[in-house]
Amino acid sequence: MRLAQLGEFGLIDRIAARFPQPLAPELGIGDDAALLSPAPGMQLVVSTDLLAEGVHFERPFGQLRLLGRKSLAVNLSDLAAMGARPRWFFLSLAIPAGLPLDEIEVLLDGLSEQAAAHGVLLAGGDTCGSRSGLVISVTIVGEQRPELLLRRSGARPGDEVWVSGTLGDSALGLQLLLKNKSVTGGAATEYVVNRHLDPTPRCGLGQALAEAGLARAMIDISDGLLADLGHICQQSGCGAEIALAHLPRSPQFERLVTSATPFPWQLVAAGGEDYELCFTAPADRRAAILERAKTAGVPATVVGKVTDSGRVVAHLPDGSIFQPSSAGYTHF
Amino acid sequence: MRLAQLGEFGLIDRIAARFPQPLAPELGIGDDAALLSPAPGMQLVVSTDLLAEGVHFERPFGQLRLLGRKSLAVNLSDLAAMGARPRWFFLSLAIPAGLPLDEIEVLLDGLSEQAAAHGVLLAGGDTCGSRSGLVISVTIVGEQRPELLLRRSGARPGDEVWVSGTLGDSALGLQLLLKNKSVTGGAATEYVVNRHLDPTPRCGLGQALAEAGLARAMIDISDGLLADLGHICQQSGCGAEIALAHLPRSPQFERLVTSATPFPWQLVAAGGEDYELCFTAPADRRAAILERAKTAGVPATVVGKVTDSGRVVAHLPDGSIFQPSSAGYTHF
Repeated sequence: MRLAQLGEFGLIDRIAARFPQPLAPELGIGDDAALLSPAPGMQLVVSTDLLAEGVHFERPFGQLRLLGRKSLAVNLSDLAAMGARPRWFFLSLAIPAGLPLDEIEVLLDGLSEQAAAHGVLLAGGDTCGSRSGLVISVTIVGEQRPELLLRRSGARPGDEVWVSGTLGDSALGLQLLLKNKSVTGGAATEYVVNRHLDPTPRCGLGQALAEAGLARAMIDISDGLLADLGHICQQSGCGAEIALAHLPRSPQFERLVTSATPFPWQLVAAGGEDYELCFTAPADRRAAILERAKTAGVPATVVGKVTDSGRVVAHLPDGSIFQPSSAGYTHF
Repeated sequence: MRLAQLGEFGLIDRIAARFPQPLAPELGIGDDAALLSPAPGMQLVVSTDLLAEGVHFERPFGQLRLLGRKSLAVNLSDLAAMGARPRWFFLSLAIPAGLPLDEIEVLLDGLSEQAAAHGVLLAGGDTCGSRSGLVISVTIVGEQRPELLLRRSGARPGDEVWVSGTLGDSALGLQLLLKNKSVTGGAATEYVVNRHLDPTPRCGLGQALAEAGLARAMIDISDGLLADLGHICQQSGCGAEIALAHLPRSPQFERLVTSATPFPWQLVAAGGEDYELCFTAPADRRAAILERAKTAGVPATVVGKVTDSGRVVAHLPDGSIFQPSSAGYTHF
């Protein structure tokens, strides 16, 4: 069946059927608006991201299932960075006329997998045709007790700077995708490409750090570590020093760049789309943080410290100062 | 200055500067997510709409200011249809590289005018480039006491069917725009074109009807009266009979179609994008409803009644049954 035969309301029915619906007395899909009831004492936390074909993704790279997973993952990552628990999401799709219904179903597969994995309910959305590319807009709504939420503005001089997981995989994966136009190569290539196409939002770690009161400021790394740590420093009125040699890298990343001279610090420190967490915390909380990271199943690494200098300084292994060719990805 | 020189963060700063920010302890633009605190006892009501160039609008028709106003208006209209009070909105923009910064500012003019008129605060969003057309995605958040909210499912046989304002202006305006490619013609043409490009969401009337407990079911007319009344009937498990002769039409509409034979009932009953309210209420509430409509400054008209037939029947002035050429606008 083609989309034109199914029609707008047919598509909405298919989407609704793919996701478990919010329970009464809340309204799910099918009224003018959705009704959301946060749990008592909870503050609502809302984030939104728009992904456009030709800008954030190329359809030939494929895998609309992964694109579905990623379009929810980037929003989940924003809630993780606040320490909030995700609950509902809204999905708007602008769909090119030529896109077969099968492929839309595959996109919905990815979205519903990710939604189920994080226990978020589809609460509403909008669908329309697109004369140009596919556009996916997701708004996510989570909740948390207000006193536990982690803002960007809480860092203090003397705090240690931490990152979760490993950095640079996604940027290297994208570089390889752009070069090869398809996912070929060994297991290491597959790993870094997958880190780009199917990032894992660190919801469990973000919530655990917030709920245990361990971190003081937190952000997710979407524009590259230096740019995003820069946001923390700007909003906290402080600076930071980072040792690039301490930045955690995957064995797969190391294997793929082994012959690169100079070493691609740019990818690790400013590549972007890592969707790892960067947070700051007093040094005496180190053991407690490592324990939470272990429980959450993701490594956490101290990479530097917060200073009162007002700027982010990154040291190369030889002690000289690293200047990224750009501080991070920016549109336009 | 061009957008490329200003950059993503420069643009976000400009957007933030155009809108009054939510007060502490809420977070506005500039963290990973926005924090929203509904007033005590209030339920949150959320709706989202995506407008894409070439589908919902053509840039040559112009007036990015009106496009800004409309992209918020269609979301406000969804909240009006629930009887909710709008409070916050989220704005995502995918911007073509060639769009001058001046024009973006004009779009923001329209958005901030409409936001100020309805007292809604910009709470967050996302911006990116677009390789194809301009895309505007708005998510709006309102609130209302849960027992007052008006669902589509509340209609009962015997209720009267009401509509606010006049119908068909917007569809006729679009028809004239598509024919002439610009707004020329007399005051009547200008009026109906403006009803298409700059619809007025009926927030005041929607809230008043909900808060006085006068309506039983409500929807906003975006797909055409027959289609949207069909949604009420489907979700209420009932039907409706409509007298087309009773459908309210503006003097400007009448003047423009005076020579049309047959009379364009299609535009009035199934044209779409009216952004008026359609609601049902017991007959003994007629006087109270008319009083609320007068206070809200918008006419309200009884156009038919709710039946137990399970379908919507529309009678032409000669008593025969009207069959729309399509029940309303659908994408794809």
